[in-house]
Amino acid sequence: MSRLQRQVPIGVRDIMPEEASKKRDMENKICKVFQGWGYQEVITPTFEFLDVLKTGSDIQGDSIFKFLDRTGNILGLRPDMTTPIARLAATKLKEKSLPLKLFYFANGFSFADPQVGRQREFFQGGIEFLGSQNPEADGEVIAIAVESLKAAGLSRFQINLGQIDVFNGLMDELGLEKEEIEAIKGTISKKNFVGLEEKLIELKLNSSQRDKVMKIITLHGGREVLDQARALITNKKGQEALDSLASVYEILELYQVSDFVAIDLGLLRGFEYYTGVVFEGYAPGIGFPICGGGRYDKLVGQFGFECPATGFALGIDRTIIALEKQQDLYQADKSDYFIIYDPLARGLAINKARELRIDGCTVETEVIARSQKESMDYAKAKGFKQVIYIDASGSEQELK
Amino acid sequence: MSRLQRQVPIGVRDIMPEEASKKRDMENKICKVFQGWGYQEVITPTFEFLDVLKTGSDIQGDSIFKFLDRTGNILGLRPDMTTPIARLAATKLKEKSLPLKLFYFANGFSFADPQVGRQREFFQGGIEFLGSQNPEADGEVIAIAVESLKAAGLSRFQINLGQIDVFNGLMDELGLEKEEIEAIKGTISKKNFVGLEEKLIELKLNSSQRDKVMKIITLHGGREVLDQARALITNKKGQEALDSLASVYEILELYQVSDFVAIDLGLLRGFEYYTGVVFEGYAPGIGFPICGGGRYDKLVGQFGFECPATGFALGIDRTIIALEKQQDLYQADKSDYFIIYDPLARGLAINKARELRIDGCTVETEVIARSQKESMDYAKAKGFKQVIYIDASGSEQELK
Repeated sequence: MSRLQRQVPIGVRDIMPEEASKKRDMENKICKVFQGWGYQEVITPTFEFLDVLKTGSDIQGDSIFKFLDRTGNILGLRPDMTTPIARLAATKLKEKSLPLKLFYFANGFSFADPQVGRQREFFQGGIEFLGSQNPEADGEVIAIAVESLKAAGLSRFQINLGQIDVFNGLMDELGLEKEEIEAIKGTISKKNFVGLEEKLIELKLNSSQRDKVMKIITLHGGREVLDQARALITNKKGQEALDSLASVYEILELYQVSDFVAIDLGLLRGFEYYTGVVFEGYAPGIGFPICGGGRYDKLVGQFGFECPATGFALGIDRTIIALEKQQDLYQADKSDYFIIYDPLARGLAINKARELRIDGCTVETEVIARSQKESMDYAKAKGFKQVIYIDASGSEQELK
Repeated sequence: MSRLQRQVPIGVRDIMPEEASKKRDMENKICKVFQGWGYQEVITPTFEFLDVLKTGSDIQGDSIFKFLDRTGNILGLRPDMTTPIARLAATKLKEKSLPLKLFYFANGFSFADPQVGRQREFFQGGIEFLGSQNPEADGEVIAIAVESLKAAGLSRFQINLGQIDVFNGLMDELGLEKEEIEAIKGTISKKNFVGLEEKLIELKLNSSQRDKVMKIITLHGGREVLDQARALITNKKGQEALDSLASVYEILELYQVSDFVAIDLGLLRGFEYYTGVVFEGYAPGIGFPICGGGRYDKLVGQFGFECPATGFALGIDRTIIALEKQQDLYQADKSDYFIIYDPLARGLAINKARELRIDGCTVETEVIARSQKESMDYAKAKGFKQVIYIDASGSEQELK
């Protein structure tokens, strides 16, 4: 076997005990939040038909890992969980009482070249709220996003809140072509406002039109942003978008989470299935969102069940990175007891370990025939809190 | 989208809330057992280089899902976790104090046609104990397997314990060719003893040779099996295998788990990497093993780090099926509170829900504008324990 092939492929990695323990701990805490709000877990297959995965998304085939099953169907590794859950809800939960409140913890895959914060395999936890068009549903989802980040241990983070119809209304008003709109979107998504202005000039918009786009897209802040935007936005789609943002913001105030929320009228999310309020969470020092979501009222309908929906996903890997920047809360838990014994005392050692485990302790017994010094070196390296030696007569002593 | 493509591919499935909740609960309980014995979690990538996945295994390329990365490397979805963990230990944990005690919860994949109990995507939890050749290590692993099945809620199950050198020694003694041995293995693995006898006749073994093979391979029972086997086995490899089985059995008596263990000299496991003691767990009414494992002293060395090892994996899906046959322990947890409110009392409803969640309750608030009757229908369908109505004046009442 070549040296290369003892390694793992580019873009994926082994997660070692210290990080795996943080991941499990974080997922358990977030899971308790989701369950506390009445959400129920679902698990979908790691791979699905490629056509399902591409539904309602602008994900191109070349960002999905593809392969064939034995009968020649094209399968793909899931790039996200929202589309699979929309399929599941439309095909299997149609008859259930609405709303449907579902959660998941799952890995996703991207065939694209790996970048900082986006590996080829990544871990997410999230919720989907199906069956309501009301701002209460968006408000609940965003409140849960805030509660989840807090439960994960983050104290400093910000949710940017937008509404994609602010942008869509503006584009309708300017009468731009689809390709032109895509080019503008590209600059906004990268927060490249110089590039945006250049693009608007290139598209021959006059200075008052350019000014309006630049002002609206860069509006960012608290509730006052909504009033500033009202003075600028004259098209109906955009005005309705502001109304829906205002209603959601009001609910976030009731949930006492609006301190974490900034309105950002330039926020556009990557997936094409979004139809209304969208949001992304950021933590200091991290250049990519740690969570994101929004309303997608048309996606479930594409699987044959017309049903408005909203939801969000939190990047577990990304949130662990954010947490490590904020604090050193996580100390790897040290094991409690290591028991070394004379061969004649093996039964006693096993019984002692059993009793301590029943008391909830983590206990290891020595299984390698080696000197007491070698055993102590192992105990030291692994950081046991206490080492017990049981001699041939059965008496115990603590070793230091 | 065609009807077919709203479905999931053959051999994989959606796991709905009731089962997902059982799976999470079972994994948490088993995880506590692994942690209690000092094992630490690792997570490996869902896909790896195909050559890594095939190492030390008789898994043929055609039972692994294969695809290419952007540079043309052949990747595969992992069929098990033992080989990836052997790679990880050999490449990343070589310098650590031994033994290494690792656990995982992971999905595995099989490109083979799905059968009962073996889907194309399946879920496992397991441990690997690296760095000891001693029977104490095998004993610990088997004791943890028993503790895990008990923690999962099973009361009736059996661990069949074998040693593959009993079979290997017998084959050496008879001087059979590799292909002939494979044919014999095939019949034994299927417990097809009629087919085995026919095969032995076909291979022109004399009646005393045939008799010996049949007697040894069908030996099954308690400690007495070891004495019966000693009278039959004359080759050194087989005799040493019996010695190692006897040592492990003795340790299982100390662990007080030998009541769950039956010695089965015909036990051969599917993976070629096994080199010593092997075992499989069975539950009444389930025709396939719910767990299995054994010693694999050569596998880690194939990745460049000579290191004896033993371990086991438990099939989560299979154990859930076994548990459902044994008892109806799992009632889907009902949510605690559903809060309906007059629009004017929205803030009060949100506060009430927050307080109840802080107390550890599962609480939903109504988000759909609908009649009280419709809200009650939803509450009834989802089985809330209590429904609270908050009117415009802020007073609460319980609805029945």
